[in-house]
Amino acid sequence: MSDMNTRILLANRPEGAVSESDFRIEQAPIPVPGDGEVLVRNLWLSVDPYMRGRMSTARSYATPVEIGDVMVGGTVGEVIDSRSPDMEAGAIVVGMLGWQTHAVANPKTLKVVPPDRIPLSAYLGVAGMPGVTAWVGLEKIGQPKDGETVVVSAAAGAVGGVVGQLAKIRGARAVGIAGGQRKVDYVTWELGFDACVDYKGGRLEADLASAVPSGIDVYWENVGGAITDAVFKKLNAFARIPLCGLISRYNDTSPAGYADPRALLVTRSKIQGFIVTDWPEVWPRAIEELTGHIEAGRLKYRESVAEGIESTPKAFVGLFSGSNIGKQVVRLAT
Amino acid sequence: MSDMNTRILLANRPEGAVSESDFRIEQAPIPVPGDGEVLVRNLWLSVDPYMRGRMSTARSYATPVEIGDVMVGGTVGEVIDSRSPDMEAGAIVVGMLGWQTHAVANPKTLKVVPPDRIPLSAYLGVAGMPGVTAWVGLEKIGQPKDGETVVVSAAAGAVGGVVGQLAKIRGARAVGIAGGQRKVDYVTWELGFDACVDYKGGRLEADLASAVPSGIDVYWENVGGAITDAVFKKLNAFARIPLCGLISRYNDTSPAGYADPRALLVTRSKIQGFIVTDWPEVWPRAIEELTGHIEAGRLKYRESVAEGIESTPKAFVGLFSGSNIGKQVVRLAT
Repeated sequence: MSDMNTRILLANRPEGAVSESDFRIEQAPIPVPGDGEVLVRNLWLSVDPYMRGRMSTARSYATPVEIGDVMVGGTVGEVIDSRSPDMEAGAIVVGMLGWQTHAVANPKTLKVVPPDRIPLSAYLGVAGMPGVTAWVGLEKIGQPKDGETVVVSAAAGAVGGVVGQLAKIRGARAVGIAGGQRKVDYVTWELGFDACVDYKGGRLEADLASAVPSGIDVYWENVGGAITDAVFKKLNAFARIPLCGLISRYNDTSPAGYADPRALLVTRSKIQGFIVTDWPEVWPRAIEELTGHIEAGRLKYRESVAEGIESTPKAFVGLFSGSNIGKQVVRLAT
Repeated sequence: MSDMNTRILLANRPEGAVSESDFRIEQAPIPVPGDGEVLVRNLWLSVDPYMRGRMSTARSYATPVEIGDVMVGGTVGEVIDSRSPDMEAGAIVVGMLGWQTHAVANPKTLKVVPPDRIPLSAYLGVAGMPGVTAWVGLEKIGQPKDGETVVVSAAAGAVGGVVGQLAKIRGARAVGIAGGQRKVDYVTWELGFDACVDYKGGRLEADLASAVPSGIDVYWENVGGAITDAVFKKLNAFARIPLCGLISRYNDTSPAGYADPRALLVTRSKIQGFIVTDWPEVWPRAIEELTGHIEAGRLKYRESVAEGIESTPKAFVGLFSGSNIGKQVVRLAT
């Protein structure tokens, strides 16, 4: 363990595709906790698509990261020094301490988790923000019923994989959409979706139609563009579309949209954007349920693990190339 | 009054823009009611944008009109012969008897209305399907609150004009979007909207921004395309968008769509398609409320009246040129 705090800063705002050169790495002294604060050594960092929005000044639901500031992000860490009566050294804590090896924080902004119930990195993924996102979008908007069909785009991703499995736990048929045979196999065989369509296979519409013989009741929107256009053609009446992301456009300066929204009218369907942080009151219940599903073996996941804080920018850029499977995390040197 | 039934039939299915030649006029014997049926002489016919959908075999929420069949449509008429104990000759009835001067019907498919409470043609407009459409979309999806801003596209149309006035009755600010100064004046001065933007004025985005200083909480979607793109840029958080129509595309074989749906995600907004006939249980309450508003002078409307059944195709085609103000109806010879 270095005796410095290694931090990754936003170096400049990208136009279009993000690249590693948009970040800068820096050594700084390890900060000293003040009265009532704790010092955390981060064990795991999260990289997620939403961070692309924080790099930009475009209208968003959160304020952007300033140039020269540490990039935002979820973390799991260990309290290594405490000047607070509310939290002891040794506690394992989940927080939003950003892309750095050490951070000082107010204990109120951290959540203590048990050290041994599930692997700690899962608190950044299947039992963290991505998992809760899946839970909230299904509970509040998608509301799949027994026997309905739920289609999930970016099904091999951190959120999508949980969506399909939760849909199946509710008795629905889960159909994924993913790019490439490796992801299709993962979604089908490892996560247990009923089917998965390869959108890179050149027959998106026909393959999707075959995979949803009873049409689509819930469409989990992670991507936008041509995939959504194909989905719209198979919507059933009164379909529900949780709008969770439009990752196919995050890096695009001239975004395409929904080519023909008439399907929403004809089927009387609903599309609703949501942000998981709008629902703080359900997080404890969601995390408890997700953790229980993991312990019981009902909720599978895979992680893409990058090693060392220096690998964080590259891991983040990789999110947009469609290459990773499961939740992308970064393991820090221990 | 002729002693024949004059009927207008669907002659062929249009590709793209509809034209008068897509219809055929025909004389037929006046039908004779069977046991339990009544004969109705129609006084007023309705022409509405939704009928374009019925001319096509494209996927829709209703079965298409067959080639050679009478065009569908709402009617107000007088019962001139009854072979039913449930309905007397002389009753004024609202129904869906189509583009013809006479029709036989089962009384159960007709609704008797008072002959003198409001003008009879209003039962095809502000107190009929368009008015109830406005009522349902606001009640079930838009749900404007006191002080919120409601933007209405096609504000000079049969539905849009009611939407803005009902929004004002609920205490919201109503802003219309319409094409041309004549319509803008109508929406502002006659219907009493707080503002109205001329989308043909060449400054749609800037004019809309000026008209909604507090952003947009409810957007009534009648049109799609460039108008919606402009609206998306001014949505407030948690905006609601009743999707009632996409009239700018009804006649288009290569429809454009929503150029950038990211606004829905960023603002956590909802867009929901609906069809007024999905809500039969609320019609009586809606019509009673609308009728009361008309009687009290709180709900203004104007009609475009075409004279004689022969004028029906032309009146219908005119709906898509953007020339008409208010509800388009056809007065039949009396």
